[in-house]
Amino acid sequence: MTSSSTPPSTQTDGRELRAGDFPHRRDMPIRWIDIDRYGHLNNAVHYLLMDTLINDWVASSTGSQPHELPAVGLVVETGCRYLREILPEHTPITLGLRVEGIGNSSIRYQVGFFVDGGEPAALARFVHVYADPESRRPVPVPDVVRRAAEAISA
Amino acid sequence: MTSSSTPPSTQTDGRELRAGDFPHRRDMPIRWIDIDRYGHLNNAVHYLLMDTLINDWVASSTGSQPHELPAVGLVVETGCRYLREILPEHTPITLGLRVEGIGNSSIRYQVGFFVDGGEPAALARFVHVYADPESRRPVPVPDVVRRAAEAISA
Amino acid sequence: MTSSSTPPSTQTDGRELRAGDFPHRRDMPIRWIDIDRYGHLNNAVHYLLMDTLINDWVASSTGSQPHELPAVGLVVETGCRYLREILPEHTPITLGLRVEGIGNSSIRYQVGFFVDGGEPAALARFVHVYADPESRRPVPVPDVVRRAAEAISA
Amino acid sequence: MTSSSTPPSTQTDGRELRAGDFPHRRDMPIRWIDIDRYGHLNNAVHYLLMDTLINDWVASSTGSQPHELPAVGLVVETGCRYLREILPEHTPITLGLRVEGIGNSSIRYQVGFFVDGGEPAALARFVHVYADPESRRPVPVPDVVRRAAEAISA
Repeated sequence: MTSSSTPPSTQTDGRELRAGDFPHRRDMPIRWIDIDRYGHLNNAVHYLLMDTLINDWVASSTGSQPHELPAVGLVVETGCRYLREILPEHTPITLGLRVEGIGNSSIRYQVGFFVDGGEPAALARFVHVYADPESRRPVPVPDVVRRAAEAISA
Repeated sequence: MTSSSTPPSTQTDGRELRAGDFPHRRDMPIRWIDIDRYGHLNNAVHYLLMDTLINDWVASSTGSQPHELPAVGLVVETGCRYLREILPEHTPITLGLRVEGIGNSSIRYQVGFFVDGGEPAALARFVHVYADPESRRPVPVPDVVRRAAEAISA
Repeated sequence: MTSSSTPPSTQTDGRELRAGDFPHRRDMPIRWIDIDRYGHLNNAVHYLLMDTLINDWVASSTGSQPHELPAVGLVVETGCRYLREILPEHTPITLGLRVEGIGNSSIRYQVGFFVDGGEPAALARFVHVYADPESRRPVPVPDVVRRAAEAISA
Repeated sequence: MTSSSTPPSTQTDGRELRAGDFPHRRDMPIRWIDIDRYGHLNNAVHYLLMDTLINDWVASSTGSQPHELPAVGLVVETGCRYLREILPEHTPITLGLRVEGIGNSSIRYQVGFFVDGGEPAALARFVHVYADPESRRPVPVPDVVRRAAEAISA
């Protein structure tokens, strides 16, 4: 279990984060139901998108669907700071992915949400701990995932 | 904007949190689509449930639908630690709500997810900043919300 | 594959359908994100709720989670007529379930959505065809499901 | 209210429908949570995607967000036939849109779901009735929408 953390910082090397700071980027459309009655992207949707971004990235960078890997990636912590409202006309939005840290069993991701070329509209974290599919006990990060994660480390 | 935080602690007064530590509790069903292909509650669903829990609590404790209040509650930060898998047979699960802090414009909530009488299966945070509906600038927490929040403060 | 059908009728025995015409009934809460920017229940949510109603009913009436049955229930057709807007203050809404027809491999369900004691706010259909988990070819409806379906037939 | 209908046919001019039969086409990604525990696209997701396809098409073809039109498009009927399972590796899938009929107040759409160059994996219908935003009574289809709909009529 993760023990402590600070919220995602919007700074990197003393300047504001930009989409270009994330090695893996993908445009993702907003769905009509994602916009709540305040007319903006509902706060939970960031997690639906992040979950898809990371699982699809695992699939494409390892060549295996996540559930076909020898270990299962359990999500033990997520979090998001919302910096700017995302509106329907922003669709598709750009998500950026990078790896903040790799442990023996865990990978800590950072995801940025961008609606134009500027500062992030939101900044999120996502922590996977790899576990044995049966016992659910932590196991080392599969090599194929570790290599992919190293390639997009911050 | 929130500046710093620590992840939700599973401890209170030196012992493990229990559902009874949350003054407002509600049973909420799991939907079939919430269970992902790992057979457990997807990590993003906790946010869908928390969002509903808090908005419904605002409505019932103030007597006004959230969008009818004089100020709009913008979500500026959320986060969750996942401590135990939630399975289909756990439906309905129990969510507990309490207020960790009230600022001039903001309210910080803590939400516990329980599948039985024991320790939390997940622990989440949710921060509202009240803003002017037009300018989106912070304004004081509406009195009716503040009074309701004080009544469920930890 | 189903070959033809008519839309769900709001009439039964020459009068308007009521919740009491459905042998299985359940109250289900609306989630905050279900309400779209028109301020009413989004049209797709009826299907999320119906899916949950039927799968949970299969589980509770057979004593087995749906995926543990000897055959898998594939959804081959769904449809819904929307008769009245469902609003946030209607939560929880009442869903009613009854079986319109049982074939060798298929079960045709009808679901009513009620927001008060009166006429349905929506009326939906849902058709399951039971199939072999591997070959995905139709097989007879499992006996335990057939008996449960007969008990709620219209 | 719609009075009667037949399920969507997979035939056109005596042959199987193809993506090319739909004048408006769009690739849409599957989200991780869309895949249920059977490992395929959950039946309700087709409606989430169709809703987005049509609303986005209204926005792009009229130059106005749907809620900015002089009349509100209320969904009065939807339906879908599922012909083939859609799997995670099919992402993104292709949706095709065409108009089956235009009435004084209503537009009837047909949507095809394609996972490769062949026959549809699903075929759906969606009926909008335009109404006065306040009284919710039917009004003529706004001219700007009618012209767009005529351009993609079957």
